[in-house]
Amino acid sequence: MSTFRIALAQINTVVGDLDGNTAKVIDYMRRARELGADLIAFPELAITGYPPEDLLFKSKFVEENKKRMHEVVAASKGISAVLGFVDSDGPLYNAAAIACDGELAHVYRKIYLPNYGVFDEERYFKPGNRCPVFKIGEASVGINICEDIWHTVGPTVVQKSAGAELIVNISASPFYTGKIEAREEMLATRASENCVYVAYLNLVGGQDELVFDGASIIHDPLGDVVEIGSQFQEELVVSDLDLGMVRNLVVGDTQISVNEEPVVGEFCIPEVISLAKIQHVPKVPIPSRSPTRYDAVGEVYAALVIGTRDYVLKSGFKKVVIALSGGIDSSIVAAVAVDALGASNVTGVSMPSRYSSEGSINDAHQLSKNLGIEMKSIPIEEAFASSLRTLESHFHGLEPDTAEENLQSRIRGNLIMAMSNKFGSLVLTTGNKSEIAVGYATIYGDMAGAYAVIKDVPKTMVYDLARYRNGLSGHDVIPEAVLIKPPSAELRPDQTDQDSLPPYEILDPILTAYVEEDCSLDDIVALGFDREMVQQVVTLVDRSEYKRRQAPPGVKITPRNFGRDRRMPIVNQYKPF
Amino acid sequence: MSTFRIALAQINTVVGDLDGNTAKVIDYMRRARELGADLIAFPELAITGYPPEDLLFKSKFVEENKKRMHEVVAASKGISAVLGFVDSDGPLYNAAAIACDGELAHVYRKIYLPNYGVFDEERYFKPGNRCPVFKIGEASVGINICEDIWHTVGPTVVQKSAGAELIVNISASPFYTGKIEAREEMLATRASENCVYVAYLNLVGGQDELVFDGASIIHDPLGDVVEIGSQFQEELVVSDLDLGMVRNLVVGDTQISVNEEPVVGEFCIPEVISLAKIQHVPKVPIPSRSPTRYDAVGEVYAALVIGTRDYVLKSGFKKVVIALSGGIDSSIVAAVAVDALGASNVTGVSMPSRYSSEGSINDAHQLSKNLGIEMKSIPIEEAFASSLRTLESHFHGLEPDTAEENLQSRIRGNLIMAMSNKFGSLVLTTGNKSEIAVGYATIYGDMAGAYAVIKDVPKTMVYDLARYRNGLSGHDVIPEAVLIKPPSAELRPDQTDQDSLPPYEILDPILTAYVEEDCSLDDIVALGFDREMVQQVVTLVDRSEYKRRQAPPGVKITPRNFGRDRRMPIVNQYKPF
Repeated sequence: MSTFRIALAQINTVVGDLDGNTAKVIDYMRRARELGADLIAFPELAITGYPPEDLLFKSKFVEENKKRMHEVVAASKGISAVLGFVDSDGPLYNAAAIACDGELAHVYRKIYLPNYGVFDEERYFKPGNRCPVFKIGEASVGINICEDIWHTVGPTVVQKSAGAELIVNISASPFYTGKIEAREEMLATRASENCVYVAYLNLVGGQDELVFDGASIIHDPLGDVVEIGSQFQEELVVSDLDLGMVRNLVVGDTQISVNEEPVVGEFCIPEVISLAKIQHVPKVPIPSRSPTRYDAVGEVYAALVIGTRDYVLKSGFKKVVIALSGGIDSSIVAAVAVDALGASNVTGVSMPSRYSSEGSINDAHQLSKNLGIEMKSIPIEEAFASSLRTLESHFHGLEPDTAEENLQSRIRGNLIMAMSNKFGSLVLTTGNKSEIAVGYATIYGDMAGAYAVIKDVPKTMVYDLARYRNGLSGHDVIPEAVLIKPPSAELRPDQTDQDSLPPYEILDPILTAYVEEDCSLDDIVALGFDREMVQQVVTLVDRSEYKRRQAPPGVKITPRNFGRDRRMPIVNQYKPF
Repeated sequence: MSTFRIALAQINTVVGDLDGNTAKVIDYMRRARELGADLIAFPELAITGYPPEDLLFKSKFVEENKKRMHEVVAASKGISAVLGFVDSDGPLYNAAAIACDGELAHVYRKIYLPNYGVFDEERYFKPGNRCPVFKIGEASVGINICEDIWHTVGPTVVQKSAGAELIVNISASPFYTGKIEAREEMLATRASENCVYVAYLNLVGGQDELVFDGASIIHDPLGDVVEIGSQFQEELVVSDLDLGMVRNLVVGDTQISVNEEPVVGEFCIPEVISLAKIQHVPKVPIPSRSPTRYDAVGEVYAALVIGTRDYVLKSGFKKVVIALSGGIDSSIVAAVAVDALGASNVTGVSMPSRYSSEGSINDAHQLSKNLGIEMKSIPIEEAFASSLRTLESHFHGLEPDTAEENLQSRIRGNLIMAMSNKFGSLVLTTGNKSEIAVGYATIYGDMAGAYAVIKDVPKTMVYDLARYRNGLSGHDVIPEAVLIKPPSAELRPDQTDQDSLPPYEILDPILTAYVEEDCSLDDIVALGFDREMVQQVVTLVDRSEYKRRQAPPGVKITPRNFGRDRRMPIVNQYKPF
């Protein structure tokens, strides 16, 4: 019996680049057709890129996206295709065109619209109300989109009841640590409980704060993995599915338990649509691949690399400049930048002050040598001294305080932005999540720049990343001295972070509980932390919302990042204790 | 026949300040009871402040808000009350407690949840499914919340069908120019088409980027205005309503046409709930008021004043510092600051450079004298010269360009932030909407600060505001020279804004069409503008999204501001032409 050859185009789209995305889609479709694939799928909103946000309010944008969809449909001779695009009939729909042999067979409209976390889909879209099964040759295939498949009692169940043997889900599922395990467990369950193949296709690449990790995957009706895609890279994932397996299994072989809760809504009516018969080219052997998957630290590092690369390149830039202090944060950012853009596109800038230790200056230079990047030195002493003189008459008789500390940081911000403006490179900032959470960062100073690579990485994880990166090289690209010295902003004599903050091993779990898990003060104290310390930390977090609102974007890597994921008021008199 | 005395507590709440908001609610309830009011209403989410945003994800916050609601209910002896709070039974609801004589009679849950523009209510709330009418003494009163009343066929129709004579709508309706006319026309229509009184209560005050303008209003069943509240100030609006008017009118007297479209959803079942009989104190004469309403320019100015005042005071600050360039933008911001906070809380800083004209320096000093504010002078020449020397070896042989221009602006940003840090005052920035739209502003330079007062005011409207403010004083607080000289950033010799931008009279309507109305290039050209110029402008707008994302908040005064109202991707390769 013949198998069903499915191709999942795990591509990296660019938001707004209708021409570029369409060309890429057509190229991948050609490749799949040459392999004799029965069906090729493209990610959610492949034509527009994801998420297009308020571009969707431009009617010309939506019209042009539909035109591109029709171009792709016309190019689908000899194959069937599932293509994410924006449908409209007055309201807009997050949709999938089902193309067959050059004709548009159907448009599926996403039924479950996420409107939580980073998602605002109810701002833009109306839900669909049909979820048919398509007869493609002898195969019965249900199509749905992203969130649709996360619902136990949803489109998948309806499609199964209409005879689906294979569910194809096209997604744009943003990365965060640990998500892949939850996702793959859900997909295995969805396959086995419905006794269907589930082919899950995810977008890959970075868009502003989001990174999509790819990692497409196909499960068989027993929930076992048939095929996987790489994390964080473009790929055409092709697999021959023995759909006969579904026909030969009886319900008792699987764990179907989905009839406990009724499916409600108009979309629950089973429906079958037959696609035209296609004369495929003969199937040729599927090229072998070695999909890349990462461990828990490695996937974070890979996310930072692709997020940084895509932000810089998709913004039309090539080069970046980074202030290297000799500390661990700027060191890991430089390593990420080199891996993302190549050493020749990364410039380090050392901006020592009267408070910089010799060790830090040396560590920064050693790092730049290890990474093979250009290093420039711009001492800030003269600019700092002249600024102090300029302010002398106004500050007369007052003790030095954070004003003078921030002044140094902002002079550095000013000088590196001048380098950026002069040489057309983007500034990468180096603050980590622990610092930005408690406001231990200078707005317009070290926070000044285009992209904040590690803004969602807690300090303790920064150390893990540094060791991971050194492990990749097999030697200490990031000097060991950087890993072992106490963290310091070096803005006054003998300063260390722990003068004003708890040790990061204590700070980070408090921050996770408060920022990511909405724990109350009592909840956090119950985890074993000192009440006064927790009060201090949550007060700092609440008071620095204004800084975060003016921070550059950076890669989301935790379940909740600062940005559109956590929308706190700036004016906020709630006292959580 | 006895009248129904309604009291609308048009109060200024603070987001998160559960204690403060509750105390204010109880105080206004006491005042209404002493007047012998039958019913007092409080704004939408009065307990939490509006919008509480992701504070809603803290279960302790929601619990505490419910506790405060019950405190208010317990304090409602001798009166009935409608109180906005967050209800929860697992999911959350934007709700109104209906209290009567110390008991909780009912909880109404908002049915229509706005999820567009600045609103994200579907992120937080589930819709309600009941909209009863309450018998309060002899009166039949329907309660609904904000968006509910904007729907022709919605809760109001259902409540009318259950016998409502009066609809009380509690709102938090953010201000923008012209909204009040649309709102009052809608309310008059809703009253007359349903042949009911409509008492509309709106929140007042500023919260981050939003300003709520109050302007509560009561219409009778013919759509005529019975009573109004002031714009932009706290007030207890009290009115005696002759509900017999509803009983005496027959349907033919009004323009009811609402049965054309059926009401759908569970909430369409008419329902009546009788509240307990209350022994009121005898009605005493209603204190006379002189409600304040503004003209089109005046309401913008008043919005800027209350927005600035509330941002500063609700953040726990008292004083502000403003860079005064002698230009019209910083002049109007200084005037707003003085009207918001008092002259003694405003400090002007003049930061002249080698390119500052004598006229500008004099104009800034004259303005500070006229406003009675302290003025400090911090020349930037020494800091600029030393920064140039610091960068000399790196910039050697390269022509001066925007790097040097931005350097000056950022030195000013740095110095004024040092003043802010040293003296504990907030920096108000002075950029207008036209500049921030096209990116004619220096990030970390003149954009550096806590609150961007006129960031949503187009440049042409800045002139209107200056003339309006001078008109209020009866003399030129803002010197005439400031109004007539050509706008210039003074960052290089003989620079004017019009070197790089179209005249503002042309730029502003292009920006309105593109930014606020999503017009395509062709649409804008069809309005009579040069195609090449429009292309230049929209390209500038798209390219400067990254700057806006790091801009401070400022008062929303147009139908669409930059901020949560316009969510554009930063990485965006869409070419609108």
